[in-house]
Amino acid sequence: MTPTLRVDIWSDIACPWCYIGQARFEKALADFEAADNVEVVWHSYQLDPTLPERFDGSEVDYLVESKGMARDQVEQMTAQVAAAARGENLPIDFDAVIPANSVRAHYLLTTIARHDGDVDKAEHALFAAHFAHGEAISDDEVLVRIGTECGLSEDQARAGLADDTIHAEVQGDFATARSIGISGVPFFVFGEKYAVSGAQPPELFAQALERTWSELQPAKLITLDSDAGEACGPAGCN
Amino acid sequence: MTPTLRVDIWSDIACPWCYIGQARFEKALADFEAADNVEVVWHSYQLDPTLPERFDGSEVDYLVESKGMARDQVEQMTAQVAAAARGENLPIDFDAVIPANSVRAHYLLTTIARHDGDVDKAEHALFAAHFAHGEAISDDEVLVRIGTECGLSEDQARAGLADDTIHAEVQGDFATARSIGISGVPFFVFGEKYAVSGAQPPELFAQALERTWSELQPAKLITLDSDAGEACGPAGCN
Repeated sequence: MTPTLRVDIWSDIACPWCYIGQARFEKALADFEAADNVEVVWHSYQLDPTLPERFDGSEVDYLVESKGMARDQVEQMTAQVAAAARGENLPIDFDAVIPANSVRAHYLLTTIARHDGDVDKAEHALFAAHFAHGEAISDDEVLVRIGTECGLSEDQARAGLADDTIHAEVQGDFATARSIGISGVPFFVFGEKYAVSGAQPPELFAQALERTWSELQPAKLITLDSDAGEACGPAGCN
Repeated sequence: MTPTLRVDIWSDIACPWCYIGQARFEKALADFEAADNVEVVWHSYQLDPTLPERFDGSEVDYLVESKGMARDQVEQMTAQVAAAARGENLPIDFDAVIPANSVRAHYLLTTIARHDGDVDKAEHALFAAHFAHGEAISDDEVLVRIGTECGLSEDQARAGLADDTIHAEVQGDFATARSIGISGVPFFVFGEKYAVSGAQPPELFAQALERTWSELQPAKLITLDSDAGEACGPAGCN
Protein backbone atom coordinates (compact mmCIF):
# COMPACT_ATOMS: atom_id res chain seq x y z
CA MET A 1 0.00 0.00 0.00
CA THR A 2 1.42 3.37 -1.01
CA PRO A 3 0.99 6.15 1.52
CA THR A 4 -0.50 9.53 0.66
CA LEU A 5 1.48 12.69 1.33
CA ARG A 6 -0.96 15.32 2.49
CA VAL A 7 -0.17 18.99 1.92
CA ASP A 8 -2.44 21.49 3.65
CA ILE A 9 -2.33 25.02 2.24
CA TRP A 10 -3.86 28.04 3.93
CA SER A 11 -4.43 30.77 1.37
CA ASP A 12 -6.50 33.84 0.61
CA ILE A 13 -7.56 34.80 -2.90
CA ALA A 14 -6.86 38.43 -2.01
CA CYS A 15 -3.22 37.55 -1.26
CA PRO A 16 -0.76 37.98 -4.14
CA TRP A 17 1.97 35.93 -2.44
CA CYS A 18 -0.53 33.07 -2.24
CA TYR A 19 -0.92 33.26 -6.04
CA ILE A 20 2.86 33.24 -6.46
CA GLY A 21 3.27 30.56 -3.78
CA GLN A 22 0.85 28.24 -5.56
CA ALA A 23 2.89 28.55 -8.76
CA ARG A 24 6.16 27.86 -6.93
CA PHE A 25 4.73 24.92 -5.03
CA GLU A 26 3.29 23.43 -8.21
CA LYS A 27 6.66 23.80 -9.94
CA ALA A 28 8.19 21.64 -7.20
CA LEU A 29 5.28 19.21 -7.32
CA ALA A 30 5.60 18.74 -11.10
CA ASP A 31 9.17 17.53 -10.63
CA PHE A 32 8.43 15.37 -7.59
CA GLU A 33 8.83 11.62 -8.11
CA ALA A 34 5.74 10.74 -6.06
CA ALA A 35 3.51 13.56 -7.29
CA ASP A 36 0.68 11.08 -7.89
CA ASN A 37 0.64 10.29 -4.19
CA VAL A 38 0.33 13.89 -3.06
CA GLU A 39 -3.05 15.13 -1.86
CA VAL A 40 -3.34 18.90 -1.70
CA VAL A 41 -5.97 20.21 0.71
CA TRP A 42 -6.74 23.92 0.43
CA HIS A 43 -7.92 25.90 3.44
CA SER A 44 -9.55 29.27 3.65
CA TYR A 45 -7.88 32.26 5.25
CA GLN A 46 -8.93 35.90 5.24
CA LEU A 47 -6.36 38.64 5.51
CA ASP A 48 -8.98 41.35 5.73
CA PRO A 49 -12.47 40.33 6.87
CA THR A 50 -13.36 44.05 7.14
CA LEU A 51 -13.13 44.60 3.38
CA PRO A 52 -16.49 45.63 1.87
CA GLU A 53 -18.05 43.28 -0.62
CA ARG A 54 -16.71 45.61 -3.30
CA PHE A 55 -14.59 48.73 -2.78
CA ASP A 56 -15.03 51.54 -5.27
CA GLY A 57 -11.44 52.38 -6.11
CA SER A 58 -8.10 50.73 -6.75
CA GLU A 59 -6.21 48.34 -4.46
CA VAL A 60 -3.72 51.12 -3.75
CA ASP A 61 -6.57 53.53 -2.90
CA TYR A 62 -8.10 50.97 -0.55
CA LEU A 63 -4.86 50.35 1.34
CA VAL A 64 -4.13 54.09 1.59
CA GLU A 65 -7.66 55.12 2.59
CA SER A 66 -8.70 52.31 4.89
CA LYS A 67 -5.39 51.12 6.33
CA GLY A 68 -3.71 54.50 6.59
CA MET A 69 -0.64 53.30 4.72
CA ALA A 70 1.53 55.84 2.84
CA ARG A 71 0.80 55.85 -0.87
CA ASP A 72 4.45 55.55 -1.93
CA GLN A 73 4.93 52.63 0.46
CA VAL A 74 1.90 50.85 -0.99
CA GLU A 75 3.05 51.50 -4.55
CA GLN A 76 6.51 50.15 -3.76
CA MET A 77 4.95 47.04 -2.25
CA THR A 78 2.66 46.36 -5.21
CA ALA A 79 5.50 46.93 -7.66
CA GLN A 80 7.70 44.42 -5.85
CA VAL A 81 4.92 41.84 -5.75
CA ALA A 82 4.08 42.39 -9.44
CA ALA A 83 7.73 41.89 -10.37
CA ALA A 84 7.89 38.63 -8.44
CA ALA A 85 4.67 37.51 -10.15
CA ARG A 86 6.13 38.22 -13.59
CA GLY A 87 9.05 35.97 -12.58
CA GLU A 88 6.53 33.14 -12.30
CA ASN A 89 4.72 34.15 -15.53
CA LEU A 90 1.74 35.37 -13.54
CA PRO A 91 0.37 38.63 -15.02
CA ILE A 92 -0.67 40.68 -12.00
CA ASP A 93 -2.22 44.04 -12.89
CA PHE A 94 -2.75 46.01 -9.68
CA ASP A 95 -4.38 48.92 -11.53
CA ALA A 96 -7.19 46.59 -12.60
CA VAL A 97 -7.67 44.80 -9.26
CA ILE A 98 -11.09 45.34 -7.66
CA PRO A 99 -10.72 45.23 -3.87
CA ALA A 100 -13.44 42.83 -2.77
CA ASN A 101 -14.16 40.70 0.26
CA SER A 102 -12.92 37.15 -0.42
CA VAL A 103 -15.26 35.23 1.84
CA ARG A 104 -17.64 34.26 -0.98
CA ALA A 105 -14.71 32.98 -3.04
CA HIS A 106 -13.87 30.72 -0.10
CA TYR A 107 -17.48 29.50 -0.06
CA LEU A 108 -17.07 28.56 -3.71
CA LEU A 109 -13.77 26.75 -3.11
CA THR A 110 -15.24 24.76 -0.23
CA THR A 111 -18.26 23.86 -2.37
CA ILE A 112 -15.97 22.62 -5.16
CA ALA A 113 -14.00 20.53 -2.65
CA ARG A 114 -17.20 19.01 -1.28
CA HIS A 115 -18.25 17.92 -4.77
CA ASP A 116 -14.75 16.54 -5.55
CA GLY A 117 -14.22 19.22 -8.16
CA ASP A 118 -10.87 20.65 -9.21
CA VAL A 119 -9.89 23.00 -6.37
CA ASP A 120 -6.34 23.58 -7.69
CA LYS A 121 -7.82 24.85 -10.94
CA ALA A 122 -10.36 26.98 -9.09
CA GLU A 123 -7.62 28.63 -7.01
CA HIS A 124 -5.78 29.49 -10.22
CA ALA A 125 -8.95 30.82 -11.83
CA LEU A 126 -9.90 32.94 -8.83
CA PHE A 127 -6.40 34.39 -8.49
CA ALA A 128 -6.36 35.19 -12.21
CA ALA A 129 -9.85 36.76 -12.05
CA HIS A 130 -8.77 38.95 -9.14
CA PHE A 131 -5.19 39.86 -10.00
CA ALA A 132 -5.10 39.73 -13.82
CA HIS A 133 -8.60 40.21 -15.19
CA GLY A 134 -10.06 42.91 -12.96
CA GLU A 135 -13.05 40.81 -11.88
CA ALA A 136 -14.74 41.10 -8.50
CA ILE A 137 -14.28 37.87 -6.56
CA SER A 138 -17.35 38.72 -4.50
CA ASP A 139 -19.56 38.70 -7.63
CA ASP A 140 -21.86 35.69 -7.88
CA GLU A 141 -21.70 35.57 -11.68
CA VAL A 142 -17.88 35.42 -11.60
CA LEU A 143 -17.97 32.76 -8.92
CA VAL A 144 -20.61 30.63 -10.61
CA ARG A 145 -18.74 30.77 -13.91
CA ILE A 146 -15.53 29.55 -12.25
CA GLY A 147 -17.47 26.90 -10.32
CA THR A 148 -18.87 25.46 -13.53
CA GLU A 149 -15.36 25.41 -15.04
CA CYS A 150 -14.14 23.38 -12.08
CA GLY A 151 -16.68 20.57 -11.73
CA LEU A 152 -19.88 22.12 -10.40
CA SER A 153 -23.23 22.50 -12.07
CA GLU A 154 -24.60 26.05 -11.95
CA ASP A 155 -27.18 24.93 -9.38
CA GLN A 156 -24.51 23.36 -7.18
CA ALA A 157 -22.44 26.54 -7.33
CA ARG A 158 -25.35 28.80 -6.37
CA ALA A 159 -26.52 26.41 -3.65
CA GLY A 160 -23.04 26.22 -2.17
CA LEU A 161 -22.64 29.97 -1.95
CA ALA A 162 -25.84 30.10 0.16
CA ASP A 163 -25.24 26.91 2.20
CA ASP A 164 -24.87 27.42 5.97
CA THR A 165 -22.79 24.24 6.35
CA ILE A 166 -20.35 25.55 3.72
CA HIS A 167 -20.15 28.85 5.55
CA ALA A 168 -19.44 27.00 8.80
CA GLU A 169 -16.69 24.96 7.15
CA VAL A 170 -14.98 28.12 5.95
CA GLN A 171 -15.20 29.60 9.45
CA GLY A 172 -13.73 26.33 10.73
CA ASP A 173 -10.69 26.82 8.49
CA PHE A 174 -10.24 30.34 9.88
CA ALA A 175 -10.42 28.94 13.42
CA THR A 176 -7.93 26.16 12.72
CA ALA A 177 -5.50 28.69 11.29
CA ARG A 178 -5.74 30.71 14.49
CA SER A 179 -5.32 27.63 16.65
CA ILE A 180 -2.07 26.61 14.97
CA GLY A 181 -0.73 30.13 15.06
CA ILE A 182 -0.88 31.12 11.40
CA SER A 183 -0.46 34.88 11.14
CA GLY A 184 0.20 35.22 7.41
CA VAL A 185 -0.38 33.37 4.17
CA PRO A 186 0.40 31.35 2.16
CA PHE A 187 1.10 28.73 4.81
CA PHE A 188 1.90 25.13 3.89
CA VAL A 189 1.90 22.09 6.17
CA PHE A 190 3.50 18.91 4.81
CA GLY A 191 2.46 15.57 6.26
CA GLU A 192 0.71 17.36 9.14
CA LYS A 193 4.16 18.08 10.51
CA TYR A 194 6.44 20.38 8.54
CA ALA A 195 5.46 23.98 8.00
CA VAL A 196 6.60 26.18 5.18
CA SER A 197 5.58 29.79 5.63
CA GLY A 198 5.33 32.09 2.65
CA ALA A 199 5.97 31.87 -1.07
CA GLN A 200 9.30 30.06 -0.73
CA PRO A 201 11.43 29.05 -3.70
CA PRO A 202 10.47 25.79 -5.45
CA GLU A 203 13.66 24.18 -4.12
CA LEU A 204 12.39 24.50 -0.56
CA PHE A 205 9.02 23.01 -1.46
CA ALA A 206 10.89 20.17 -3.18
CA GLN A 207 12.88 19.53 0.01
CA ALA A 208 9.71 19.51 2.07
CA LEU A 209 8.09 17.01 -0.30
CA GLU A 210 11.15 14.72 -0.30
CA ARG A 211 11.60 14.78 3.44
CA THR A 212 7.98 14.19 4.30
CA TRP A 213 7.69 11.46 1.69
CA SER A 214 10.73 9.60 3.02
CA GLU A 215 9.28 9.70 6.52
CA LEU A 216 6.00 8.26 5.29
CA GLN A 217 7.52 4.96 4.17
CA PRO A 218 6.45 2.66 7.00
CA ALA A 219 7.97 -0.55 5.74
CA LYS A 220 11.38 0.94 5.11
CA LEU A 221 13.19 0.14 8.34
CA ILE A 222 16.11 2.50 7.95
CA THR A 223 19.32 1.21 9.48
CA LEU A 224 20.94 4.22 11.04
CA ASP A 225 24.51 3.07 10.51
CA SER A 226 26.17 1.78 7.39
CA ASP A 227 28.03 -0.94 9.29
CA ALA A 228 26.01 -3.85 10.60
CA GLY A 229 26.54 -4.04 14.35
CA GLU A 230 27.87 -7.00 16.26
CA ALA A 231 25.16 -9.60 16.44
CA CYS A 232 24.40 -13.27 16.76
CA GLY A 233 22.75 -15.18 13.97
CA PRO A 234 22.11 -18.82 13.09
CA ALA A 235 25.80 -19.27 12.21
CA GLY A 236 27.12 -17.89 15.49
CA CYS A 237 28.15 -14.52 16.85
CA ASN A 238 30.45 -12.13 15.00
CA MET B 1 -0.09 15.54 25.38
CA THR B 2 3.41 14.14 25.25
CA PRO B 3 3.93 11.34 22.76
CA THR B 4 5.52 8.02 23.67
CA LEU B 5 8.61 6.83 21.82
CA ARG B 6 8.29 3.09 21.41
CA VAL B 7 11.43 0.98 21.10
CA ASP B 8 10.92 -2.67 20.14
CA ILE B 9 13.85 -4.97 20.88
CA TRP B 10 14.18 -8.52 19.58
CA SER B 11 16.61 -10.44 21.74
CA ASP B 12 17.58 -13.92 22.86
CA ILE B 13 18.89 -14.68 26.35
CA ALA B 14 21.38 -17.10 24.75
CA CYS B 15 22.85 -14.22 22.69
CA PRO B 16 25.85 -12.45 24.23
CA TRP B 17 25.61 -9.48 21.85
CA CYS B 18 22.03 -8.99 23.09
CA TYR B 19 23.39 -8.71 26.66
CA ILE B 20 26.00 -6.19 25.49
CA GLY B 21 23.46 -4.41 23.26
CA GLN B 22 21.07 -3.92 26.18
CA ALA B 23 23.87 -2.27 28.19
CA ARG B 24 24.81 0.03 25.29
CA PHE B 25 21.20 0.95 24.57
CA GLU B 26 20.55 1.71 28.23
CA LYS B 27 23.66 3.90 28.38
CA ALA B 28 22.15 6.01 25.56
CA LEU B 29 18.73 5.96 27.19
CA ALA B 30 20.11 7.18 30.53
CA ASP B 31 21.46 10.31 28.80
CA PHE B 32 18.36 10.88 26.67
CA GLU B 33 16.38 14.03 27.49
CA ALA B 34 13.01 12.33 27.02
CA ALA B 35 13.90 9.01 28.66
CA ASP B 36 10.69 9.16 30.71
CA ASN B 37 8.67 9.05 27.47
CA VAL B 38 10.38 5.96 26.08
CA GLU B 39 8.54 2.67 26.22
CA VAL B 40 10.76 -0.36 25.67
CA VAL B 41 8.95 -3.46 24.40
CA TRP B 42 10.99 -6.66 24.46
CA HIS B 43 10.34 -9.43 21.97
CA SER B 44 11.42 -13.04 21.99
CA TYR B 45 13.83 -14.47 19.46
CA GLN B 46 15.54 -17.85 19.41
CA LEU B 47 18.87 -18.26 17.73
CA ASP B 48 18.87 -22.04 18.24
CA PRO B 49 15.51 -23.71 18.78
CA THR B 50 17.25 -27.12 18.40
CA LEU B 51 19.24 -26.69 21.62
CA PRO B 52 18.33 -29.35 24.20
CA GLU B 53 16.75 -28.15 27.43
CA ARG B 54 20.20 -28.51 28.99
CA PHE B 55 23.40 -29.59 27.22
CA ASP B 56 25.93 -31.51 29.27
CA GLY B 57 29.13 -29.67 28.41
CA SER B 58 30.48 -26.18 27.85
CA GLU B 59 29.23 -23.60 25.36
CA VAL B 60 32.37 -24.20 23.29
CA ASP B 61 31.80 -27.97 23.37
CA TYR B 62 28.22 -27.48 22.24
CA LEU B 63 29.13 -25.28 19.28
CA VAL B 64 31.95 -27.63 18.24
CA GLU B 65 29.97 -30.84 18.64
CA SER B 66 26.57 -29.84 17.37
CA LYS B 67 27.36 -27.08 14.88
CA GLY B 68 30.56 -28.60 13.48
CA MET B 69 32.48 -25.38 14.07
CA ALA B 70 36.29 -25.52 14.54
CA ARG B 71 37.28 -25.32 18.22
CA ASP B 72 39.84 -22.54 17.71
CA GLN B 73 37.32 -20.50 15.75
CA VAL B 74 34.75 -20.86 18.54
CA GLU B 75 37.32 -19.98 21.19
CA GLN B 76 38.37 -16.90 19.27
CA MET B 77 34.73 -15.86 18.95
CA THR B 78 33.96 -16.29 22.64
CA ALA B 79 37.15 -14.47 23.62
CA GLN B 80 36.19 -11.50 21.43
CA VAL B 81 32.70 -11.39 22.83
CA ALA B 82 33.94 -11.67 26.42
CA ALA B 83 36.35 -8.78 25.83
CA ALA B 84 33.54 -6.60 24.45
CA ALA B 85 31.41 -7.53 27.47
CA ARG B 86 34.18 -6.50 29.88
CA GLY B 87 34.19 -3.16 28.07
CA GLU B 88 30.61 -2.72 29.26
CA ASN B 89 31.36 -4.04 32.76
CA LEU B 90 29.43 -7.24 32.07
CA PRO B 91 31.25 -10.23 33.48
CA ILE B 92 30.74 -13.00 30.91
CA ASP B 93 32.31 -16.33 31.89
CA PHE B 94 31.98 -18.72 28.94
CA ASP B 95 33.55 -21.60 30.88
CA ALA B 96 30.64 -21.47 33.33
CA VAL B 97 27.85 -21.06 30.75
CA ILE B 98 25.37 -23.94 30.65
CA PRO B 99 24.04 -24.31 27.08
CA ALA B 100 20.29 -24.46 27.54
CA ASN B 101 17.24 -23.87 25.40
CA SER B 102 16.00 -20.32 25.97
CA VAL B 103 12.33 -20.82 25.16
CA ARG B 104 11.26 -21.11 28.81
CA ALA B 105 13.13 -17.92 29.64
CA HIS B 106 11.03 -16.22 26.95
CA TYR B 107 7.89 -17.65 28.55
CA LEU B 108 8.96 -16.03 31.81
CA LEU B 109 9.68 -12.66 30.17
CA THR B 110 6.30 -12.65 28.45
CA THR B 111 4.60 -13.53 31.74
CA ILE B 112 6.36 -10.65 33.49
CA ALA B 113 5.28 -8.27 30.70
CA ARG B 114 1.69 -9.44 30.98
CA HIS B 115 1.66 -8.69 34.72
CA ASP B 116 3.34 -5.28 34.17
CA GLY B 117 6.47 -6.47 35.93
CA ASP B 118 9.98 -5.17 35.30
CA VAL B 119 11.01 -6.79 32.02
CA ASP B 120 14.20 -4.71 31.68
CA LYS B 121 15.36 -6.01 35.04
CA ALA B 122 14.39 -9.56 34.13
CA GLU B 123 16.41 -9.38 30.90
CA HIS B 124 19.42 -8.27 32.92
CA ALA B 125 18.88 -11.01 35.49
CA LEU B 126 18.48 -13.75 32.89
CA PHE B 127 21.55 -12.62 30.94
CA ALA B 128 23.55 -12.54 34.18
CA ALA B 129 22.27 -15.96 35.26
CA HIS B 130 23.25 -17.41 31.89
CA PHE B 131 26.50 -15.64 31.07
CA ALA B 132 27.97 -14.80 34.49
CA HIS B 133 26.58 -17.17 37.11
CA GLY B 134 26.52 -20.53 35.33
CA GLU B 135 22.81 -21.07 35.86
CA ALA B 136 20.56 -23.00 33.47
CA ILE B 137 17.99 -20.62 31.97
CA SER B 138 15.75 -23.62 31.26
CA ASP B 139 15.54 -24.47 34.98
CA ASP B 140 12.18 -23.67 36.56
CA GLU B 141 13.68 -22.79 39.94
CA VAL B 142 16.03 -20.25 38.34
CA LEU B 143 13.17 -18.79 36.30
CA VAL B 144 10.73 -18.61 39.20
CA ARG B 145 13.33 -16.91 41.39
CA ILE B 146 13.96 -14.25 38.74
CA GLY B 147 10.23 -13.88 38.14
CA THR B 148 9.63 -13.13 41.83
CA GLU B 149 12.46 -10.57 41.76
CA CYS B 150 10.76 -8.80 38.87
CA GLY B 151 7.17 -8.40 39.97
CA LEU B 152 5.57 -11.86 39.88
CA SER B 153 4.31 -13.99 42.71
CA GLU B 154 5.70 -17.53 42.68
CA ASP B 155 2.28 -18.82 41.58
CA GLN B 156 2.13 -16.33 38.71
CA ALA B 157 5.60 -17.33 37.54
CA ARG B 158 4.81 -21.06 37.56
CA ALA B 159 1.44 -20.53 35.91
CA GLY B 160 2.97 -18.39 33.17
CA LEU B 161 5.61 -20.99 32.31
CA ALA B 162 2.79 -23.51 31.71
CA ASP B 163 0.30 -21.12 30.05
CA ASP B 164 -0.60 -21.93 26.44
CA THR B 165 -1.49 -18.30 25.65
CA ILE B 166 1.97 -17.23 26.88
CA HIS B 167 3.56 -19.90 24.67
CA ALA B 168 1.54 -18.64 21.70
CA GLU B 169 2.60 -15.06 22.35
CA VAL B 170 6.26 -16.08 22.30
CA GLN B 171 5.72 -17.95 19.04
CA GLY B 172 4.01 -14.82 17.72
CA ASP B 173 7.18 -12.83 18.43
CA PHE B 174 9.22 -15.39 16.50
CA ALA B 175 6.81 -15.11 13.57
CA THR B 176 6.87 -11.30 13.56
CA ALA B 177 10.67 -11.37 13.51
CA ARG B 178 10.58 -13.61 10.44
CA SER B 179 7.96 -11.43 8.75
CA ILE B 180 10.05 -8.27 9.06
CA GLY B 181 13.20 -10.06 7.95
CA ILE B 182 15.19 -10.23 11.19
CA SER B 183 18.04 -12.71 10.75
CA GLY B 184 20.12 -11.88 13.79
CA VAL B 185 19.82 -10.26 17.20
CA PRO B 186 19.79 -7.91 18.95
CA PHE B 187 17.49 -5.99 16.63
CA PHE B 188 16.02 -2.64 17.63
CA VAL B 189 13.14 -0.78 16.00
CA PHE B 190 12.62 2.87 17.01
CA GLY B 191 9.20 4.43 16.60
CA GLU B 192 8.09 1.46 14.45
CA LYS B 193 10.27 2.93 11.70
CA TYR B 194 14.02 3.03 12.23
CA ALA B 195 15.95 -0.20 12.62
CA VAL B 196 19.24 -0.62 14.40
CA SER B 197 20.77 -4.04 13.91
CA GLY B 198 23.28 -5.39 16.40
CA ALA B 199 25.00 -4.14 19.53
CA GLN B 200 25.84 -0.72 18.10
CA PRO B 201 27.73 1.95 20.03
CA PRO B 202 25.65 4.06 22.47
CA GLU B 203 26.15 7.08 20.19
CA LEU B 204 24.13 5.40 17.44
CA PHE B 205 21.34 4.49 19.85
CA ALA B 206 21.37 8.10 21.02
CA GLN B 207 21.00 9.29 17.41
CA ALA B 208 18.10 6.90 16.86
CA LEU B 209 16.35 8.14 20.00
CA GLU B 210 16.86 11.81 19.06
CA ARG B 211 15.71 11.39 15.50
CA THR B 212 12.63 9.33 16.29
CA TRP B 213 11.70 11.64 19.14
CA SER B 214 11.95 14.76 16.96
CA GLU B 215 9.69 13.12 14.38
CA LEU B 216 7.11 12.31 17.04
CA GLN B 217 6.43 15.95 17.92
CA PRO B 218 3.14 16.61 16.13
CA ALA B 219 2.63 20.17 17.26
CA LYS B 220 6.12 21.30 16.37
CA LEU B 221 5.58 22.56 12.85
CA ILE B 222 9.16 22.72 11.69
CA THR B 223 9.80 25.54 9.26
CA LEU B 224 12.17 24.13 6.70
CA ASP B 225 13.93 27.40 5.99
CA SER B 226 15.46 29.89 8.36
CA ASP B 227 14.14 32.87 6.39
CA ALA B 228 10.42 33.51 6.53
CA GLY B 229 9.09 33.50 2.97
CA GLU B 230 7.29 36.31 1.26
CA ALA B 231 3.81 36.47 2.64
CA CYS B 232 0.84 38.65 3.32
CA GLY B 233 -0.34 39.37 6.84
CA PRO B 234 -2.73 41.78 8.51
CA ALA B 235 -0.28 44.65 7.94
CA GLY B 236 0.13 44.06 4.23
CA CYS B 237 2.41 42.04 1.98
CA ASN B 238 6.18 42.00 2.31
